[in-house]
Amino acid sequence: MAAVDITPQVDRPSNTCTIAEYLVTRIDQLGGGGQQPIFGVPGDFNLGLLDYFEEHPRLNWIGNTNELNAAYASDAYARTCKNMATLITTQGVGELSAINGVAGSMAERLPIFHIVGVAATSVMKSSKVLHHTLASTDSSYSAFANTAREITSAQALLSSSEGAGGEIDRLIVHAISNCKPVYLTLPSDLVKSQIPAAPLKTPLPSAHEIRGLVEAHSSVFADESEKQKAYDAVVEEIVKLFKESKNPAVVVDACALRYGVEAQAQALVEKGNMIFFDTPMGKGAIDESHSHFGGTYIGALSNPVETKELAEASDLVINVGALSSDFNTGSWSGNLKEKKSIELHSDQTVIGYARYPGVPMRVVIPKLAEALRKIAKPDPTKSEKFIAAKKAREVKNVKILEESKGNLNSPITHDWFWPRFGDFFNTGDVILTETGTSSFGILDVTLPDKATAISQVLWGSIGYSLPGTLGAAIAARDQGRRTVLFIGDGSLQLTIQELATIIRLGLKPILVVLSNDGYEIERKIHGETAAYNEIAHIDHQMLLKTFSPPAGSKQKQAEHKSIQVKTRAELDEVLNDKNFANASKLTLLEVVMPRGDCPLALTKQAEMSAKING
Amino acid sequence: MAAVDITPQVDRPSNTCTIAEYLVTRIDQLGGGGQQPIFGVPGDFNLGLLDYFEEHPRLNWIGNTNELNAAYASDAYARTCKNMATLITTQGVGELSAINGVAGSMAERLPIFHIVGVAATSVMKSSKVLHHTLASTDSSYSAFANTAREITSAQALLSSSEGAGGEIDRLIVHAISNCKPVYLTLPSDLVKSQIPAAPLKTPLPSAHEIRGLVEAHSSVFADESEKQKAYDAVVEEIVKLFKESKNPAVVVDACALRYGVEAQAQALVEKGNMIFFDTPMGKGAIDESHSHFGGTYIGALSNPVETKELAEASDLVINVGALSSDFNTGSWSGNLKEKKSIELHSDQTVIGYARYPGVPMRVVIPKLAEALRKIAKPDPTKSEKFIAAKKAREVKNVKILEESKGNLNSPITHDWFWPRFGDFFNTGDVILTETGTSSFGILDVTLPDKATAISQVLWGSIGYSLPGTLGAAIAARDQGRRTVLFIGDGSLQLTIQELATIIRLGLKPILVVLSNDGYEIERKIHGETAAYNEIAHIDHQMLLKTFSPPAGSKQKQAEHKSIQVKTRAELDEVLNDKNFANASKLTLLEVVMPRGDCPLALTKQAEMSAKING
Repeated sequence: MAAVDITPQVDRPSNTCTIAEYLVTRIDQLGGGGQQPIFGVPGDFNLGLLDYFEEHPRLNWIGNTNELNAAYASDAYARTCKNMATLITTQGVGELSAINGVAGSMAERLPIFHIVGVAATSVMKSSKVLHHTLASTDSSYSAFANTAREITSAQALLSSSEGAGGEIDRLIVHAISNCKPVYLTLPSDLVKSQIPAAPLKTPLPSAHEIRGLVEAHSSVFADESEKQKAYDAVVEEIVKLFKESKNPAVVVDACALRYGVEAQAQALVEKGNMIFFDTPMGKGAIDESHSHFGGTYIGALSNPVETKELAEASDLVINVGALSSDFNTGSWSGNLKEKKSIELHSDQTVIGYARYPGVPMRVVIPKLAEALRKIAKPDPTKSEKFIAAKKAREVKNVKILEESKGNLNSPITHDWFWPRFGDFFNTGDVILTETGTSSFGILDVTLPDKATAISQVLWGSIGYSLPGTLGAAIAARDQGRRTVLFIGDGSLQLTIQELATIIRLGLKPILVVLSNDGYEIERKIHGETAAYNEIAHIDHQMLLKTFSPPAGSKQKQAEHKSIQVKTRAELDEVLNDKNFANASKLTLLEVVMPRGDCPLALTKQAEMSAKING
Repeated sequence: MAAVDITPQVDRPSNTCTIAEYLVTRIDQLGGGGQQPIFGVPGDFNLGLLDYFEEHPRLNWIGNTNELNAAYASDAYARTCKNMATLITTQGVGELSAINGVAGSMAERLPIFHIVGVAATSVMKSSKVLHHTLASTDSSYSAFANTAREITSAQALLSSSEGAGGEIDRLIVHAISNCKPVYLTLPSDLVKSQIPAAPLKTPLPSAHEIRGLVEAHSSVFADESEKQKAYDAVVEEIVKLFKESKNPAVVVDACALRYGVEAQAQALVEKGNMIFFDTPMGKGAIDESHSHFGGTYIGALSNPVETKELAEASDLVINVGALSSDFNTGSWSGNLKEKKSIELHSDQTVIGYARYPGVPMRVVIPKLAEALRKIAKPDPTKSEKFIAAKKAREVKNVKILEESKGNLNSPITHDWFWPRFGDFFNTGDVILTETGTSSFGILDVTLPDKATAISQVLWGSIGYSLPGTLGAAIAARDQGRRTVLFIGDGSLQLTIQELATIIRLGLKPILVVLSNDGYEIERKIHGETAAYNEIAHIDHQMLLKTFSPPAGSKQKQAEHKSIQVKTRAELDEVLNDKNFANASKLTLLEVVMPRGDCPLALTKQAEMSAKING
C-alpha cells in the first residue's frame, strides 16, 4: 500500500496540507472524536483519495458491495447517528449507480456528503475519450455534474486547488444546515495539491451549533434587532392562538427528527400541557409511551379511528417539521383545522395562511415552550376522547393477541404479527421497515422509549432497508442498541448482496424476512394475480451461509443463525427465546405469511393510490 | 389479473387504440414476428402499462431483480439480437436506479427504449407531495426528466394523448438510427387514452431499413442530387488514396457492430484484398479466423508486438466505426498514419483532416467495395510482416499450452487460462467479459467464427456482465448459441441477484467466476495491498442453490451445477467434459486464481492509467 501521511510533515510549510488531508480532517471533526464509517465503492479515479481514509484512525472505509447500497447505508447511518454521512464513489459509473439513493436523501432530508473521484484535470481539458465517460466531447464531464444538480442541494466541482478548502467547508455546512445531500468532485491529480491548512485550526462545531451559526447569518432580516422582533412577533401570535384554544395539540413529523428538535418538541408538549401525535415519518420523535401521546395520525388511515377523531377535535394544531406526502397523510385525507394550523419548519413558520420566512423552529420551539409554561392547559389526558383513543389503541392489540392464544397453530397474519412484535421491542431499538407491508405494519405498533423508526415513507425505494440496516447497525452498535429489520421477499432481492458487508463487519442485526411470495404492496394497488408482481423464489435459509466466507477463507467467520417460522406458535417460541432477543449473533428470521394478507392501512392506502393513478 | 384487450374492440371506433396498445404494437413490430423480452421492475406507476405486456403473445415481461440489472440486461440483449431493447421502470426510484446502465448504453451506443411509468397528469399538476418524488413543488417532476436528458439521446414526456403516437414513433426511430437510448414518460392515467391507430397499419421496417430512411431524409444536403454527388466524391477520394497505397488495411471497431455493417466491412476487406484488424470494442466484427486477419490492434498493448508492427506499417488505414477511448487504444498509444487515415462513421466520413458530414458508412462501404474490386491489391497475406504476425499469434498461445503440459498441477494463471479457453470456444459463442482481468484476458484469444464478444470497454461499469449474461442468453437461446461469461469475484457481488432471474427463466449460460480475492484491476492501478481493494468473501459454490427456488416452491427447479477448480489439470478436465461443453445445464465454474496475477495487457494499461490519474 502507498504510504500516506495524514498529519502534516515537517519538511513542508506547516501552514499547508493536501486537499485530501483537509477533507479527511473536516469529516473527522464532525465525529467529535468518535469512529465514523465512510461508505462507498473504490474506483480508479478515487483510489488516491481512499489512501487517506485507509490510514485514518477514526474514519473507517466500509467498502459496500455496490454504490446504490452504499448510498442507502449512508442515509440510514445519518438517520441513526443524527449527523452527516460520507459517501465516496467514482466518476460516471459509480456516482450514477448511487444517484437513486442520494435522491432519496434529498427527498427525505438527510445530510449526505457525496464525494466523487473524477479524472485528472489535464485529461478533462483534452478531447481524448476516457473510460467512465459518455464519449462525447461536449458532455463527457458536465453530464454527471448536471445530474447531480437535480438531486443534491449544493455542488462544488473542484478544478484547481484554489479555494478548495472553502468549498469543502461550504458544502459540509450546507448539508448539515439544510439536511440535504451535497456533491463534490475531486479530480485525481488534485488529491495531493497543497492548500492553506489554517482554517482547520478552528474545528467544525456540532450539527446543532452549525445550524445556529447559519441562522445567525440569515439574510432574511435587515439586522439582528429586526430578526429578534420577528421571532417575538411569531411567538406572540402563537401564544394568542394558544390562549384562545380549548384543546390544542402538537403533531411531530419528519423534520423534527431530521433537525434533532425532539427534546424541544417534547418540552413544548409538556410546558403547554398538550396532547401530541406523530405521523408515519415522525414516528417515535417523542416517546410513544409518553402519557400525552394521542396516537399516530394518518388522516383516514389512522388506526384505531379514535386517534383520528381525537386529532381532528383539536381546535389548534402545532405541526413540528411537517412533510405532507401522500403516504404520510393517508393521501391527504386528514381534516385538521386549517385556519388554526401552525407549522414550525426548519426555515420558516406558517400560521394559518401567513408565512414567516427566516423564523425557524429551532428558535421558536424553546421560546414558545417558555411562554406556554405559565398558561398551560388543564390536564388534557382526562378528556373523554383522549381516554377513548388510548383505550382503543391498547385494546386493539391486546384483543388480537388474546384471541390468538387458542389458535397458535394458525398461519401468521399481519393483524397478529405486528402487535406480537410490539411486545418484543425494547427501549432504544432501531427498527427499520421496508416500503410495503412492513412500513404500514409498523404503524400499528406503539414504539418503546428511545426507539428509532426508519422507513422511506416518502421516497419509497424498495430495497432501501437492507443496506439501511448496515448503516443503522454501525451507528447502533456504537450506541449499544439493537437493530431490527423488517423486509419482504420482493424488496430483499434488490439489494441482497449487502448481507456480505453486514457479515464482514460482524454486525448482529435481527433480519426479519416476510416471505409472502412477491410484491404484495403492488398487488394491492394493481395486478393482484399478475405475473409481473411475482418474483424469483430464492432460498432465504441459505442466504447468511452463502454471503459468509467459505471454508479456508482468511476472512473471519461471524456467528449467525437462520430460522424459518410458519405458525404463530413457532414465532412465539423464537420471540420468547432469550438468545434471540439478546441479538448476540446475526439472525435471519424468515416468517412465512400467506400471500394476499397485509396490514389494514396498506389495503386502504393502496385503494387510494390506485384511484389517484387513474 | 385485470383483463386487458390488446386487440381493438368492436364497440369503439376502429380507428383508435389506447396509447399502451400503440406502444406495445410498435415494439412488437420491431421483432419481426419473433419473441422479445421486456426488461424492468414493476412499480405502482407502471402497473397499468404492464398489463398490456403480460397479455401479449410475443412480448415477454422478464421482471428483473432490480432496475440497474434490468438496464444492463437490455444493453447486452440489444448487442446480441442487434435490435432495440425495451426497459420499463417507475418514476424516480426506478428510473434513477437504472440510470447508470442507460448511460452505459449511451456511451457504448446501444438502442434502448426506456419507458418510465409516472404519476397521473392530474396529480402532477397539483402541489401535493406524492411518494417517489423529491417533495419539492418546483422540481418534483422535472428533476428526473432533466437527469434523463443528460444520458439519453431523445426524450418525450407525454402530458396528454395528443401526438402520443408520433412521439413514440419518433423515439423508436431515433434510438435505432442513432444507436442510442431514448426516454419516454407515460403518466398512469394516459395508459388507456385513445389515440389514432392508423399509423400502425404501416409496420415499422427493420433497423437497417429505418437507418436508410433516416439517411434518405438527411437535411445535410440541398437535394438528392447533391447528396449523391457528395457520396461519389468521398468514394472517389478514398479510391485515389487506395490506388496510391501499397499496403492498405481496415480496422473494424465498435460501431461496425452497432450499425450491423460487419458483412459489408468484410466484403470491403475481400474486394480490396486488404488485411484487417479489430480492436477491443470491435473484436470479432469480422471473423478472426478469416485469412486476412492481422490481429487485435490496441496500440502499445497489442500482443504479440508483431500485430502492432504490422498495423503501423500500413500506409493507409480505413477505420470502420472507430471509437477511440483509452481502453480501446492502449491509452491512445497507437501510431497509425494520421494523414492517410480514413474514418467511416455512421453519420460522416473523415479523410485525413477533412470531414464529410452526412456521408455515412452504410452507404460508403458497399460503394467503395464495388469500386475496389477492380483495383484489388495483390495477396497481402504473403507479406513478411503479415506472416510474422500470424505466426507470433499462433505460437504465443500454442507455446504456453505446450509448456504447461508437464506442469498441470500448478495454479491457474491468466497467461495459460485464456489460451486454454480459446481452444474451448465454439462457432457462434456469445462471450461476455467483465471489465477487469476478463476484458483484458479475452484480448489474447482468437475468437471462433460468428462469435459475439460483449464487454463494456468504454463505460466500464463493474457488475455489468452478469445481468448482461441474462440479456445475451435470452437472445442466444433463440439463436441456438452458447453463452459464456467471465467475471471476477469483485465485480460479481455488485449485481449477483440477477442469478435468480437466469435460474427462473431456465437459461443455461456457462458462468466462469474468476476467484482472485478482490478488485484486481484496481490493485494494478493503485493500492496493491490496500484494504479498500478487498471484498467480502462469499461462498460461490452455494450461489446457484441459494438463488434457486427452495424445496416446496411452486417455481420450477432448473438443473444446475457448481464446480470449483484450482489447478490447470482440474480445469482441463472440466473443459474436456462433453456435458460441460454442451451447456445442457446452468453451470457455475469457479476458477481459483492467485491474487496479483493478471493478463499482461491489464498490467500495462493499469500503469498507463495510474500515470494519467496523476
